[in-house]
Amino acid sequence: MEEFVKSLARPRKVIILVQAGAPVDSTISNLLKFMEPGDIIIDGGNEWYENTERRMKECEEKGILFMGMGVSGGEEGARKGPAMMPGGPREAYDAIAPVITRVAAQVDGGACTTYVGPRGAGNYVKMVHNGIEYGDMQLIAEAYDILKTVGGLTAEELAEVFDDWNKGELQSFLIEITAQIFKTPNDKGSGALVDYILDKTGMKGTGKWTVQQAAELSVAAPTIEASLDARFMSGNKDQRVAAEAFYAGLGLAAAGADRPAVDKKQLVEDVKAALYASKVCSYAQGMNIIKAKSAEQGWGIALGEMARIWKGGCIIRAQFLDRIKQAYDRDADLASLLMDEAFAKEIIARDAAWRRVVSTALAAGVGAPGMTASLAYFDAFRRGRLPANLVQAQRDYFGSHTYQRTDDPSGEWYHTVWSEGNSADSITTQGYTA
Amino acid sequence: MEEFVKSLARPRKVIILVQAGAPVDSTISNLLKFMEPGDIIIDGGNEWYENTERRMKECEEKGILFMGMGVSGGEEGARKGPAMMPGGPREAYDAIAPVITRVAAQVDGGACTTYVGPRGAGNYVKMVHNGIEYGDMQLIAEAYDILKTVGGLTAEELAEVFDDWNKGELQSFLIEITAQIFKTPNDKGSGALVDYILDKTGMKGTGKWTVQQAAELSVAAPTIEASLDARFMSGNKDQRVAAEAFYAGLGLAAAGADRPAVDKKQLVEDVKAALYASKVCSYAQGMNIIKAKSAEQGWGIALGEMARIWKGGCIIRAQFLDRIKQAYDRDADLASLLMDEAFAKEIIARDAAWRRVVSTALAAGVGAPGMTASLAYFDAFRRGRLPANLVQAQRDYFGSHTYQRTDDPSGEWYHTVWSEGNSADSITTQGYTA
Repeated sequence: MEEFVKSLARPRKVIILVQAGAPVDSTISNLLKFMEPGDIIIDGGNEWYENTERRMKECEEKGILFMGMGVSGGEEGARKGPAMMPGGPREAYDAIAPVITRVAAQVDGGACTTYVGPRGAGNYVKMVHNGIEYGDMQLIAEAYDILKTVGGLTAEELAEVFDDWNKGELQSFLIEITAQIFKTPNDKGSGALVDYILDKTGMKGTGKWTVQQAAELSVAAPTIEASLDARFMSGNKDQRVAAEAFYAGLGLAAAGADRPAVDKKQLVEDVKAALYASKVCSYAQGMNIIKAKSAEQGWGIALGEMARIWKGGCIIRAQFLDRIKQAYDRDADLASLLMDEAFAKEIIARDAAWRRVVSTALAAGVGAPGMTASLAYFDAFRRGRLPANLVQAQRDYFGSHTYQRTDDPSGEWYHTVWSEGNSADSITTQGYTA
Repeated sequence: MEEFVKSLARPRKVIILVQAGAPVDSTISNLLKFMEPGDIIIDGGNEWYENTERRMKECEEKGILFMGMGVSGGEEGARKGPAMMPGGPREAYDAIAPVITRVAAQVDGGACTTYVGPRGAGNYVKMVHNGIEYGDMQLIAEAYDILKTVGGLTAEELAEVFDDWNKGELQSFLIEITAQIFKTPNDKGSGALVDYILDKTGMKGTGKWTVQQAAELSVAAPTIEASLDARFMSGNKDQRVAAEAFYAGLGLAAAGADRPAVDKKQLVEDVKAALYASKVCSYAQGMNIIKAKSAEQGWGIALGEMARIWKGGCIIRAQFLDRIKQAYDRDADLASLLMDEAFAKEIIARDAAWRRVVSTALAAGVGAPGMTASLAYFDAFRRGRLPANLVQAQRDYFGSHTYQRTDDPSGEWYHTVWSEGNSADSITTQGYTA
């Protein structure tokens, strides 16, 4: 370690890419034995942002600049340039910018990196990027599921569909590799390899953190939550197989058994529309999480820039991100992607198809949790009056939590003794002995 | 404080009910000045279980026994007996049991309290109780929304429906007070009061914690998540009003505008079925969270006993909980409520109606996020083969995460170089400059 550190020109710039958690601490501790004030350490792992902020302080006490930099791109990114999301001291970013802007993937908007913000901002944005990635993957899996289970499409047909989708508004790395996956033959027999892959999905911690952070920030993120839940449920394979047999034994048909006759071509078009509209909702949720955290922490994250640096290198890279960047170019303070006129028009154009797909899927017993959660999210988002008035009445009833009135713009809080004048005596015992 | 403490017979038993967090610490600190070894402090607030465990250790060092006891019941419970969920040292429970079993609500299964488990188990169970409460309230709000917005029911008709529902399998405190709410006239004009209540729902921390814990434990809890998200979205009232106008301006009809002609009677029956089936899913999720945490912590929580003590006193008290208790009586290790034959048969009997309701709601632009999430959950739960195979293929494609095969029961892990033999060159740049 000493030899390595002393071999570097000062100020030294060391990127570490080891497992998040204790290995990062021990690597930093080893580096600090030999580094000198002004040197820079950059952690490129998927680290919890608060760990990065702790390390930043510890390093700062020794005059060392520390950064947390999210890196996305997998194997491809490693070879051909990833997307990099560095956060921490501005002066450290300025020192490494000449290098990382050349290492990063290059797209028509420039290098896929930028100064994300101070402290843990880089790790945080990478975490949400991964949450969005969960959403993209789940929505694609549902499109596949509906086309296969309801539409009866073969792997060959699916490959064609995804190749075709990759030429339009859905063009993206994930759609492209999905087409490739459908083309890949089973190397141990006949058919497509994908049909022999076990339906149990692994995960790391970033999707979970995204969901927990959304809750912490009071941001609704149902598409991302549904994607995380889908991974959890995929893990209970034995339980699911047992449940399918159990319900079949009690007379409930398995998913897809009762599927209606469908017009395949129409279904493909509808699913494409549903996938796109759901994707917009998922990104709106992810961007809202970043926006809320940035406001809370004073990070000053430019959302349009995040969309721009995700355009290349990373797993969610897509033509679509250019439209997100444009939306934030039009209005940097956009309350939601769903309030951008271009996206709103795209959603409206797909609205009927989206609802058809979800109804068809649910009628066939194919849950499509991400698409249904996205649609329910959209409906709540654009609804001036939700049934939350009843919830608030209930809370006032049993806990005196008070409520406001629609006809009193002063915002005054009211409380009603609801049971008075009604049958108050009946409220207590629920038919059990008092 | 000294006078108060010294006035008690030893071992002293003091229940504190102050705001969770710092006020609890300062109250304990004041009590400890005068309490003596063997005395007992019980915190009855909605406290985060790890805070309780920390306090338990601090008190233990001074020979004081500390318990965290969840209490539910609101105003009614305070007057007529709540449900109490005490966790902590067994000997402390034994000392207070004679008192709390008499203070608690009494139902045909006994007092609505029991020894939940060691350490923070009592707070934890109360936390999940509240998460379930969020689910119940949201599902009822959606039933109301569909009946009102799609079915066009008046407050008078809604009161009749809920009164009727309260005589059957949905009988519960929340259904009962909902009927009362619909009967309560607007005290500042004509119509029903509920129609003038602002649709912004407040919340405390327990629903959020439940969602975060579900994610932490890898337990899918989409109904509870949807309920929390609905509260978050209700809070964005100004944004929702703006969005409704914005989308109307772009030509998208508001929720309920395009509603089809419905058979009111059939809709009421269908919504009743959908509410019940969704409720089963919500409780299955809540019970799974408790089960997973109990296993992780070695708390040994008896799930059937939790259902029993919730039968009276608390906000979620319901006839329904008796059926949950019976399910755990039949099999204490039940993998899920959905694997109990009685519940499964009830779900199957409601399956078609449930799907009709969700489709009708979504077609009308009424999101019904809790009911749709519940249905998608059920479909994933009882599905032997999910599309997670594609997600796993994608993960192997871009990150070499490997996969298992359905035709290799050894569980061996495989990796495929997916792009080989396909158009590998096309995978990298997404149409942007390389």
